[in-house]
Amino acid sequence: DVPEVAVIPGDGIGHEVVPAAVEVLETVGDYAFTEAEAGDATLDETGEALPAETYELAATADATLFGAAGESAADVILPLREAVGSFVNIRPATAYPGVDALRPETDLVFLRENTEGVYAGHEDRLTDDVSTLTRVVTETASRRLGEFACEYVRERPEHDGFTVAHKANVMRETDGLFRDTVLAEAERAGVDADTVLMDAFATHVCLDPDRFDVIVCPNLAGDVLSDLAAGLVGGLGLLPSANVGDERGLFEPVHGTAPDIAGEGVANPAATMLSAAMLVESLGDDDAGDRIRTAVEGVLSDGPRTPDLGGQATTREVTDAVLARL
Amino acid sequence: DVPEVAVIPGDGIGHEVVPAAVEVLETVGDYAFTEAEAGDATLDETGEALPAETYELAATADATLFGAAGESAADVILPLREAVGSFVNIRPATAYPGVDALRPETDLVFLRENTEGVYAGHEDRLTDDVSTLTRVVTETASRRLGEFACEYVRERPEHDGFTVAHKANVMRETDGLFRDTVLAEAERAGVDADTVLMDAFATHVCLDPDRFDVIVCPNLAGDVLSDLAAGLVGGLGLLPSANVGDERGLFEPVHGTAPDIAGEGVANPAATMLSAAMLVESLGDDDAGDRIRTAVEGVLSDGPRTPDLGGQATTREVTDAVLARL
Ligand SMILES: CC(C)[C@H](C(=O)O)[C@@H](O)C(=O)O
Ligand SMILES: CC(C)[C@H](C(=O)O)[C@@H](O)C(=O)O
Repeated sequence: DVPEVAVIPGDGIGHEVVPAAVEVLETVGDYAFTEAEAGDATLDETGEALPAETYELAATADATLFGAAGESAADVILPLREAVGSFVNIRPATAYPGVDALRPETDLVFLRENTEGVYAGHEDRLTDDVSTLTRVVTETASRRLGEFACEYVRERPEHDGFTVAHKANVMRETDGLFRDTVLAEAERAGVDADTVLMDAFATHVCLDPDRFDVIVCPNLAGDVLSDLAAGLVGGLGLLPSANVGDERGLFEPVHGTAPDIAGEGVANPAATMLSAAMLVESLGDDDAGDRIRTAVEGVLSDGPRTPDLGGQATTREVTDAVLARL
Repeated sequence: DVPEVAVIPGDGIGHEVVPAAVEVLETVGDYAFTEAEAGDATLDETGEALPAETYELAATADATLFGAAGESAADVILPLREAVGSFVNIRPATAYPGVDALRPETDLVFLRENTEGVYAGHEDRLTDDVSTLTRVVTETASRRLGEFACEYVRERPEHDGFTVAHKANVMRETDGLFRDTVLAEAERAGVDADTVLMDAFATHVCLDPDRFDVIVCPNLAGDVLSDLAAGLVGGLGLLPSANVGDERGLFEPVHGTAPDIAGEGVANPAATMLSAAMLVESLGDDDAGDRIRTAVEGVLSDGPRTPDLGGQATTREVTDAVLARL
């Protein structure tokens, strides 16, 4: 039985980088691909940014590769994360040798809670003047993330432990519950863990990214702090991500649709290919994951480069260079 | 009638940098100082981090100069902001010539909403498993901040307009109300304004801080994003801030108590002196504000330096150098 992989290019450069990553997947393994639609163009055509068929496909496929969505991103990506039952968003932020980075020593992994916080989003307009949002933090979701973080660190000898980023000095009950529950899991598992206030993290990661390694955060903190780390490694263009659930996952580059270059055939496919590496690993093929990562990193360090990295190569040329190394 | 200035050193290096800034104030003008206590040591002694007398003093003085507080920071600074009726926290993040900065071109001003958001903080533990926090955004507070931002920009020809940072793609009602209300004020006042998602801001400010100028944000976004900007200018050590209310204000360095160097007489007083410059401006003495800023910047660029800036000078020596330039 060949794993079923749902493929959702979305909008903009999604239509360029996702097919490139699919070629990579076809080279390293045997997968049954099914393509589906989502995003702004789909919204225009069908009245829905995320059609029920696309949701269903992601909810049943063994893994989903997603590109990017435009204005409708939140209406696409948040339900898709739910469709795959994802409880953690893994966001590595690594500077690659040979790629311009503000902090070339940056090598971080964010483990972002993926189900609640402000994203659980119960909002009300109580009066003309007053609006509220109910932020939700549960012990169950915090414990699950903590367990995952412990397993993640223990399976990877390159990581010594993790840091919990939080704002429990202000959000005492909610972030306090998050922090204490994750720390309790670390203690139970015998994993080293410390804590940092999310605002202090924002300063310190700029001054000395080496101070940190794996960062475990609530949902919105993970969103903002991982995007900050993206700035330190030179932009969103190279960052992959994995939305991991118990049975399946959703894999997507951190970048957006890049409307300024969409359709020109010069989008950088690296982040989507690195997301594909995480995808095959989630299907148990660590070997194929390593092969993809090695090939992409090789091309990043001395192969052809797309314009975002200061080169003149096309997506096609970069893809061929990666395929040649596989 | 001499303006009454409340002086609250707090903990740690607060006891070194606040007296240094008071010497500067004494040199540029005539103020009646009253000192009061707050912070961890006060908590140990009296059972309260912020005694009622200190709160009352800040609530009635014309301006308050605050140093830093340790573990009890939230219990000190949040009520003090309320005591002075502050609705906006002004946080300039400027890289100074001659001071090592990750992005030396950084020159930003954050106007942070100072009364609500998650800081309005109604939290509940609904069940053993579930905790909630009710985030509050009102049109009133958003409009007031928007009005202030328009006035701020119009009075300062060096600023062309402002950018509203928000997360309204997820917090649609609350951050949507914030963003739309601030933008409506800009439109009414004829001030240029655009918007950016707070996560995108975190990436882009690292890649190109010149893209931004004045950033208007909700409370927690302002906390984290201004601390990020602090990382770009080389740390918290140089950043002043002003908590502005209608009648009075509270002025404080962005840095903390620095327990590692407290008591050694080598703390950098620059951020507190720059906060004192904002204090005298709030009392209408723009001239004294300029004088303080020019003197501090002069010393930063070619005067004696404390160890945090790679020098060997003491707080006393730096203070004398600043006083000599006044
Ligand atoms: C599009 C948006 C809803 C999303 C998020 O906030 O999670 C994006 O910023 C991301 O990080 O994938
Ligand atoms: C101490 C803490 C409550 C405070 C805040 O979150 O506002 C601090 O981080 C700041 O920015 O002044």
